[in-house]
Amino acid sequence: MLKNDLLLRALKGEKTERVPVWMMRQAGRYLPDYLKLKAKYDFFTRVQTPELATQITLQPIDQVGVDAAIIFSDILVIPQAMGMEVLMEEGKGPSLPKVIESQANVDALVTTGVEENLKYVMDALALTKKELNGRVPLIGFAGAPWTLLCYMVEGKGSKTWDKAKQFAYTQPVVAHSLLQKITDITIQYLKAQVKAGADVVQVFDSWAGSLSPADFKMYAQPYLLQIAAALKEDAPVILFPKGTWHALGDLSKSGASGLGIDWCIEPKMARAFTNNSITLQGNFDPAKLLAPIPEIKKAVKEMIDGFGTQRYIANLGHGITPNVPVDHAKAFVDAVKEYGVSE
Amino acid sequence: MLKNDLLLRALKGEKTERVPVWMMRQAGRYLPDYLKLKAKYDFFTRVQTPELATQITLQPIDQVGVDAAIIFSDILVIPQAMGMEVLMEEGKGPSLPKVIESQANVDALVTTGVEENLKYVMDALALTKKELNGRVPLIGFAGAPWTLLCYMVEGKGSKTWDKAKQFAYTQPVVAHSLLQKITDITIQYLKAQVKAGADVVQVFDSWAGSLSPADFKMYAQPYLLQIAAALKEDAPVILFPKGTWHALGDLSKSGASGLGIDWCIEPKMARAFTNNSITLQGNFDPAKLLAPIPEIKKAVKEMIDGFGTQRYIANLGHGITPNVPVDHAKAFVDAVKEYGVSE
Repeated sequence: MLKNDLLLRALKGEKTERVPVWMMRQAGRYLPDYLKLKAKYDFFTRVQTPELATQITLQPIDQVGVDAAIIFSDILVIPQAMGMEVLMEEGKGPSLPKVIESQANVDALVTTGVEENLKYVMDALALTKKELNGRVPLIGFAGAPWTLLCYMVEGKGSKTWDKAKQFAYTQPVVAHSLLQKITDITIQYLKAQVKAGADVVQVFDSWAGSLSPADFKMYAQPYLLQIAAALKEDAPVILFPKGTWHALGDLSKSGASGLGIDWCIEPKMARAFTNNSITLQGNFDPAKLLAPIPEIKKAVKEMIDGFGTQRYIANLGHGITPNVPVDHAKAFVDAVKEYGVSE
Repeated sequence: MLKNDLLLRALKGEKTERVPVWMMRQAGRYLPDYLKLKAKYDFFTRVQTPELATQITLQPIDQVGVDAAIIFSDILVIPQAMGMEVLMEEGKGPSLPKVIESQANVDALVTTGVEENLKYVMDALALTKKELNGRVPLIGFAGAPWTLLCYMVEGKGSKTWDKAKQFAYTQPVVAHSLLQKITDITIQYLKAQVKAGADVVQVFDSWAGSLSPADFKMYAQPYLLQIAAALKEDAPVILFPKGTWHALGDLSKSGASGLGIDWCIEPKMARAFTNNSITLQGNFDPAKLLAPIPEIKKAVKEMIDGFGTQRYIANLGHGITPNVPVDHAKAFVDAVKEYGVSE
């Protein structure tokens, strides 16, 4: 059915004739066509209107030539579906006016009717799937429990996630009940995404790297493992706990099909830590897309030399930033596609 | 001369009867007596008035019982002494209105007369040394070249240090000339600090962890090694390139006497990466000081169990934050001092 199933084969550990490539946040702020829609519709209108979300999701497929589409959405749709107010002020990042402070707050969260509350995501997936018409696989996603707890407790972004950690350290039972609640709803949500058309799902644990290895094992890893195990029969799962090189060994033994890694680890080291036993995804420094194009191409070659061409998905080590010129993003994608072709 | 030379002995690799302890940013924002001075004098008045800097430096010695004093100052005094304007707005962090963009900007930086320009630091060190009267060693410090370049190019703090990286990637020759200029002046500055009374110097590379391992080796490590080599005969040097677990092996072979590490690595792993060949300093998560006191004590014990009691300096993995209660900071220090005493 799929004309280009490189991503799926890489995740299954099957042979790929070249390395598949996509970019985190590829549907978004660096694309002029996205900026036109951004000027007309506010953030949640773009997220909640399936036609707009689909249009945005498709832009980088045509314009940059990536090997996968990732649905345009946001990790904070889950706290929103659980009954929390989420505000998104342009240029300021998200804010949640009423934060979680107690067991009573956790108990008050809504955990039923996810699929109905987030019907707009499923509609966007179904519409995108149809529009893609088998060109490339479609990726669904969710935020990881620890990362969502961070926002639900802090109420906004933070450098240190002090409040979230203080909450976990002083009320561990409440923290674990919140993490479990998020995990349960995330499993339902991701299963619904697969049913609606997602071929692969990725779990973003963007703030996992703020935790010590011991605390990651306590507050993040168990919930990532639960999600990977629960989705195993539905679709390949990519776990992306940013900054947790120390957990790569443990995570490589999970039910996940792939692990995303950031740029702060050498590819060869990541292979060693995971004992060559799992598909890896990453790990180009997004800031390196600001380098001159020949430098980008050289760095892409070095990256693939390090990872090897099999069980590997080329990607950035975090989301692309708004200041990247489109031709630089395209140079990254092209460099992956050209790798080894002349050899 | 020194009544308590635990820190110096740990750095020389000599036997210590107990683990020495101090805390990054121990002189500062969590102490009520500091806040009283902060209400009366602006930031640079506090930094540039030797009597005030000395008073602030001494506060944690008496009030928290740490085994070393670190001079109250700021890493941005170097860009300032090089002729750049540095503004410090309370609660907003530093800003440098005119940033470095070109070789001409680098050439225009002042590199002579450091000792005279920063006489207030030397005066503060001399006065603090006198007031300490041999109670504990005195630590001087500087920002690392890469971290100072970050501020000098971005003009303010950043999550991603995009602009600094873009500068390095697009104008590598200019970047290296700036890094070398900062390195040269930093060596002069640290030597002057030792002459003025510093027993140990620490180099803070707070943003080293934003670089990929390859870029760290290109833009940060060579300059850290130069500084460590140049100071070797003057005083023990502690290098603290935050977030660079991947470089611990290389750095352990440098001229430094100690390496600071953050909390995102297990102590045993840090020992393995450095082949047990160098004194390590760290690595308590500052946010864990917000945990209940019994939890702090338990985590301190686990940390020392991991590092062992020799060639080790207990510290945080980054600066203490303003929201830490003083009795929690003291519990951290006490837990280190109590380690093994009942055994």
